[in-house]
Amino acid sequence: MFDQVSIIGCGLIGSSVLRKLKKNGSVKKLITYDNDKSVVEIIKKEDISDQIASSPSEAVKNSDLVLISTPLSSFESVINSIKNNLKPGSILTDTCSVKKEVNQIVKKINLKNSFWIPGHPVAGTENSGPRAGFAELFRDRWTILTPDKGVKDSDIKKISLFWESMGSKVKIMSAEDHDKILSMTSHLPHVIAYNIVKTAMQDDEKTKSDVVRYSAGGLRDFTRIAASDPTMWKDIFISNSSLIIEAIDKFSKSLEDFKKAIIAKDSKKLLEIFEKSKEFRKSIIKAGQDTDKPDFGRKN
Amino acid sequence: MFDQVSIIGCGLIGSSVLRKLKKNGSVKKLITYDNDKSVVEIIKKEDISDQIASSPSEAVKNSDLVLISTPLSSFESVINSIKNNLKPGSILTDTCSVKKEVNQIVKKINLKNSFWIPGHPVAGTENSGPRAGFAELFRDRWTILTPDKGVKDSDIKKISLFWESMGSKVKIMSAEDHDKILSMTSHLPHVIAYNIVKTAMQDDEKTKSDVVRYSAGGLRDFTRIAASDPTMWKDIFISNSSLIIEAIDKFSKSLEDFKKAIIAKDSKKLLEIFEKSKEFRKSIIKAGQDTDKPDFGRKN
Repeated sequence: MFDQVSIIGCGLIGSSVLRKLKKNGSVKKLITYDNDKSVVEIIKKEDISDQIASSPSEAVKNSDLVLISTPLSSFESVINSIKNNLKPGSILTDTCSVKKEVNQIVKKINLKNSFWIPGHPVAGTENSGPRAGFAELFRDRWTILTPDKGVKDSDIKKISLFWESMGSKVKIMSAEDHDKILSMTSHLPHVIAYNIVKTAMQDDEKTKSDVVRYSAGGLRDFTRIAASDPTMWKDIFISNSSLIIEAIDKFSKSLEDFKKAIIAKDSKKLLEIFEKSKEFRKSIIKAGQDTDKPDFGRKN
Repeated sequence: MFDQVSIIGCGLIGSSVLRKLKKNGSVKKLITYDNDKSVVEIIKKEDISDQIASSPSEAVKNSDLVLISTPLSSFESVINSIKNNLKPGSILTDTCSVKKEVNQIVKKINLKNSFWIPGHPVAGTENSGPRAGFAELFRDRWTILTPDKGVKDSDIKKISLFWESMGSKVKIMSAEDHDKILSMTSHLPHVIAYNIVKTAMQDDEKTKSDVVRYSAGGLRDFTRIAASDPTMWKDIFISNSSLIIEAIDKFSKSLEDFKKAIIAKDSKKLLEIFEKSKEFRKSIIKAGQDTDKPDFGRKN
């Protein structure tokens, strides 16, 4: 596959890639960089990197694959510091949740030596940082690649094989389609989860403490999603704002319709909504994207 | 505690109570009734009832505690069929998620022999039916009792001890307070979960199949909550409609404010919302109402 791989940014995603690469033993040399010393300590302690570089530009030298898994807001400065050190013929990729913006950044610098193939593994947990990572994070999850039309098939093949070796399934689409789909499957759910917590927190102190106490009725499961990394989500909301606003507007319109059914005490309409939701969930389980083991109200 | 206990309705909640009572061995005789034959088969197979009655009125004879855990929409007919067979001095309770309506039903029949103490164990999973139940469902969860002012302390004590023997913590409050708090901690989260699924399903077939495929980014966790029992939730939405509409309006107002921050790309405001959500989640974990083990994007 690739003889030498560099990982810039070793949080949840970067460290999980490292662990899986180490486990597979398929790469000759793994070089890492992270600007957070406490992150570097964990990488050292777990011995999942062959070399820890002192700068992004040092990290990428002679590497066949460079993967950037920093927050989106650090992406431009990383690109600028590595652009002149990339090995000719190497592949440059990333793991950001929004593809349009990273594309714009890379196009601006007019990359000469390296081939840019943006990627996004649709996987994660509500915890962030290297301690939260694990080798099997990508197993059975989709990784979306959004290469430009000019990119060679052989290079797309290489990076596809790389993600498949992570346990992932690979899908190629345009950056526009990616950002649109993710605005519905990931960005909107996060807006909504944050907003329900925001709503619950508006009550007075007495009510708020009651809300915490009786949160097992459903609310706690929203707080789980809303515990995701703040910096990452701030970046996503800003970078994909117009598609997210579109999704919010759709959601609000649908909520108005739902509200009418509740006001009208329309049993038939309500049951129809609920039955359809159950069906939709079944299709998610069938697609291997969740298990049907109970978790909301789980046993442990 | 109680020599003889009757459970009417043996779904997720009723069967979990049965299992725990059997496990504890604290009751001399357990009598059950369910109008669904397949439910009765499971109860028989698991041997968690001493006697299976052929009607609710037969089930309650000579029992010291009668617990109704049917859907809310069956509550009135159950009450009417048992009212003349209740043992003098017995306690009648329930497990419904909305307390105002069950109170009204019971008050209408002017119960003579038995003491009515409504209850609600704030516990559950997204799965329903007796197969989904388990003995430890109530462990560390709150059970809310909403007795009227005239109810004897000794009777409240008895039913409190009963729920404590289920592993639950007990809180006494008014039916009004209960319905208000639950509209925020449980009913609103379900409206929102159903609505996000409803929104996602409005797309065309191609987009819908993409949405299913990439649902691991957050959406699948909403479909989990939205997979809860349709009949139960239809009953709750209808019975607590005005408080739920109030909660929806609060949510929508908060969402408008959030939307403005996204449109304005207001990093500071967004980070503030996210950090506060993290804090709120920490307080839920501190209150013992969830664990901090990752689950969204869980390892298995």
